Amino acid sequence: MNRKKENTSVSKLKIIPLGGLEQIGLNITAFEYEDSIVVVDCGLAFPADDMLGIDLVIPDITYLKDNAEKVKGFVITHGHEDHIGALPYVLKELNVPVYATRLTMGIIENKLKEHGLEKETRRKVMKFGQTVNLGQFRIEFIKTNHSIVDAAALAIYSPAGTVVHTGDFKVDYTPVYGDAIDLQRFAEIGRKGVLALMCDSTNAERPGFTPSERTVGRTFDTLFEEHSSTRIFVATFASNVDRVQQIINTAYKFGRKVVVEGRSMVNIIDIASSLGCINIPKNTLIDIDELKNYPDEKQVIITTGSQGESMAALSRMASDMHKKITIGHGDTVIFSSNPIPGNEKAVTKVINELLRKGADVIFQDTHVSGHACQEEIKLIYTLVHPRYAVPVHGEYKHLMAQSKIAENLGISKDNIFILSSGDVLELDERGAGVTGRVPVGSILVDGLGVGDVGNVVLRDRQHLAEDGILIVVMSLDKYTGLLAAGPDIVSRGFVYVRESDALMEEARQVVDSAVTGLLDRGISDWGKIKAVTKDALSEYVWKKTKRRPMILPIIMEV
Amino acid sequence: MNRKKENTSVSKLKIIPLGGLEQIGLNITAFEYEDSIVVVDCGLAFPADDMLGIDLVIPDITYLKDNAEKVKGFVITHGHEDHIGALPYVLKELNVPVYATRLTMGIIENKLKEHGLEKETRRKVMKFGQTVNLGQFRIEFIKTNHSIVDAAALAIYSPAGTVVHTGDFKVDYTPVYGDAIDLQRFAEIGRKGVLALMCDSTNAERPGFTPSERTVGRTFDTLFEEHSSTRIFVATFASNVDRVQQIINTAYKFGRKVVVEGRSMVNIIDIASSLGCINIPKNTLIDIDELKNYPDEKQVIITTGSQGESMAALSRMASDMHKKITIGHGDTVIFSSNPIPGNEKAVTKVINELLRKGADVIFQDTHVSGHACQEEIKLIYTLVHPRYAVPVHGEYKHLMAQSKIAENLGISKDNIFILSSGDVLELDERGAGVTGRVPVGSILVDGLGVGDVGNVVLRDRQHLAEDGILIVVMSLDKYTGLLAAGPDIVSRGFVYVRESDALMEEARQVVDSAVTGLLDRGISDWGKIKAVTKDALSEYVWKKTKRRPMILPIIMEV
Repeated sequence: MNRKKENTSVSKLKIIPLGGLEQIGLNITAFEYEDSIVVVDCGLAFPADDMLGIDLVIPDITYLKDNAEKVKGFVITHGHEDHIGALPYVLKELNVPVYATRLTMGIIENKLKEHGLEKETRRKVMKFGQTVNLGQFRIEFIKTNHSIVDAAALAIYSPAGTVVHTGDFKVDYTPVYGDAIDLQRFAEIGRKGVLALMCDSTNAERPGFTPSERTVGRTFDTLFEEHSSTRIFVATFASNVDRVQQIINTAYKFGRKVVVEGRSMVNIIDIASSLGCINIPKNTLIDIDELKNYPDEKQVIITTGSQGESMAALSRMASDMHKKITIGHGDTVIFSSNPIPGNEKAVTKVINELLRKGADVIFQDTHVSGHACQEEIKLIYTLVHPRYAVPVHGEYKHLMAQSKIAENLGISKDNIFILSSGDVLELDERGAGVTGRVPVGSILVDGLGVGDVGNVVLRDRQHLAEDGILIVVMSLDKYTGLLAAGPDIVSRGFVYVRESDALMEEARQVVDSAVTGLLDRGISDWGKIKAVTKDALSEYVWKKTKRRPMILPIIMEV
Repeated sequence: MNRKKENTSVSKLKIIPLGGLEQIGLNITAFEYEDSIVVVDCGLAFPADDMLGIDLVIPDITYLKDNAEKVKGFVITHGHEDHIGALPYVLKELNVPVYATRLTMGIIENKLKEHGLEKETRRKVMKFGQTVNLGQFRIEFIKTNHSIVDAAALAIYSPAGTVVHTGDFKVDYTPVYGDAIDLQRFAEIGRKGVLALMCDSTNAERPGFTPSERTVGRTFDTLFEEHSSTRIFVATFASNVDRVQQIINTAYKFGRKVVVEGRSMVNIIDIASSLGCINIPKNTLIDIDELKNYPDEKQVIITTGSQGESMAALSRMASDMHKKITIGHGDTVIFSSNPIPGNEKAVTKVINELLRKGADVIFQDTHVSGHACQEEIKLIYTLVHPRYAVPVHGEYKHLMAQSKIAENLGISKDNIFILSSGDVLELDERGAGVTGRVPVGSILVDGLGVGDVGNVVLRDRQHLAEDGILIVVMSLDKYTGLLAAGPDIVSRGFVYVRESDALMEEARQVVDSAVTGLLDRGISDWGKIKAVTKDALSEYVWKKTKRRPMILPIIMEV
């Protein structure tokens, strides 16, 4: 029996995911033991297709605010938006310290500056192997590998037992920068006894092992060799510093100068460079304005926009909307990325545009995933040997896939928990179970507004988007109660009015006779007038067009 | 030299695609020789993501209407929406005969009935091998294979030479219903000399051969064997009659009763059944209300919704919104389909819902494509041996991929034409080239409205969807020119007004003082009042919220 010594804690540990289990993104999980709460990650989500006009989504942290005196800090696994993006919004409401590794903290600090929070936010850069005491918890940062440098797993020690949280990870024995994942430390912690493992499920449906990031570098070498006489563009994820490093390595090998284009990528490379996480040979990186001094075959442009984002550098360069660079005949464009689900059409659109302009588009194996496949997940389970499994990171089907892996490794079904956001999982050596719920939700951010766009506003936007709006205005005489002006109808997004004169005029008459009918009978209640207007007009419009625009009667009293 | 005898025609043949080359769908191509025009296919396209509220898109046929006296008829390759869906709309404007094979015509007739056109539309059912004379053209229907029964290629004989148009096709040596593609006829026509081949490009990026539809049947057998004790749902494309046939075959083999659910699938199966294109053993198909008389392991439900469409039967059954069937714990759901690009997220959403309800979801190889892969394309090129290649059906990248295949087969680059919709390709034995353009475009259909939603209306809908609308109403006294009432602001889709009282009141004051300022200076020009209102309000709103709602000032005179 390699279980821990008899557990003497009275209380149980609570694991409370406040987001991230119903969608990709919005990762935030509270760990609570008696008077202490530690929060792992604080991510945003990108808006779903029906969240019209929304810029981003952040988690509802009501539970943390209600227990503010308990919250000891945020511990962050890595610097991707779905793990750090909500921090500036949340810290404005709950000013607690932030703990993260070097590059992760560099990216966070950049965000804090944008929000004017860099002075008031306490923060501590953590090294791998280092621990921090937070109330009754002790948190250890463990080296992992991922598609961003300095990713960490966390060992969360509590009086009720230890939880290992992998963050997003893969096993890379030959990483580009820094060390391989610290498998020995996972093994040691596992040997001492682990209550629960919370493991990345993103690739749990995929058999085998994710290839090393380094394999991509060899492919770049081959492609640069094959395209030695053209300009080369490489589109990839802004935050994948190792990928950029490898493109630069190959460029240097082939004597090409490199331009990095796209604001988010420039930001991250600046931060990584200042922290020594990327090694750029002298005179390799040049300014975009210097490109003209070099022939095509001496240029490499590394750019954002690999997901087909219409405002990113690649799209703009493809559609002649970029100020300084245009992609055209003879250029080679390498997509060093896979489309994220939902972006397939946008990516294809950019590829078609590039081909149409005569570029040679390479859309092959210059990408590897940053997430663990099935064999890596099995490895971590075997090293950590947890009593309970709590799959995280992924959609429901991914969590299910991991839960099947855990079962195959001998963890009983009763000890595997697929949680929903808001579930309170209480656990210790004696048992585990969901014992309650806390409030959770998605707060929509639109411009400067945080949370002022809710379901009512979204439904209105969806309605407006579908069939537009008909506004009916009329003035009533406050003494006689009769029509002083109108009704007039103004439409937007409904039909092209200049070609629909007859329809609009007939609609006006329909409303006019409905309203006059009421007023003639002495009924001047505004609610009734509005209701009659809506009914008459919507019936007429549906009959004539089979459309249901929003109908908005406005009455003025004069 | 296996070229045709010396060509004596004076005129050239014109090939004019009126749609289908910039997008998936909207397939329609005019073939013109002197006083004769024949049109191949007449498809719709589904609206792009930014075409808010639009139901479907049809081609602009101005060119055909301008040359109405020349148009001899439509010849249709097969019964998919992207090849026949615009017919009812177009026939209303241009009443010419329609030629198609049996099932294709059956589906077209169903559409004509819905539009009340079945009486006035002349039509002729064509057999494979049969030809029809249309002006100076002769058209032959040639058997092919595709994911719908009765698909045809066309040999288009003109005095200037012969064009072979494959339609959508694959090579299936062991089809489920009917014969294999008539490769011998392709060879004979090729031997006599073919001017141009217009070949399906959809799968031109994929190496190898598309597997036979029949392989899917064996997989169903295995899956039914493995899930012998549960209810089985199979989701697939409504029009894939052969797929439904195979599911029914397997169901019959395992003694299960079958329900077909989803309006479009029921329609097509009815038509196919009445034409003898599907063979359903007696007492196998039952009514949905009879399901309750059979135990789970004796039921199969074949359903629409394999693309995650929220209103289709599968989604409704998964989310308890279907009146008669609910999918739950213990059910097996087989997706016999691949997500069409753009539908990935919707499909995943349904899968997650099904898993969450405890269903077993099978998302594996019970699907094969209906389109030819590279080796099949090479086979057709080699048999037909055309002088010119005109790749069709597919996005630009697919057309490019086919053009590379054609080049590798020895067709010179100058003889390969990647056309855009509206291009006029003139060709005969002596040469070919794009010589002009005709008007083309996408007509948007919204409800009963055909073409009344254009760019202005769409832009308004996009604007409304993004940030909503602020309506400013005011009444001016027609004698004094002063404000008689208002300004009042009404908003929809902007902010949740009940929680934004202060913002809305301050906005009202901003407008009030701007308008009063004008009126006090004696300026009562409505254009100026509206402009000042817009400027003042949009500046204020942007400063406060970083949003740009539509601002609509309405002035009434009393």
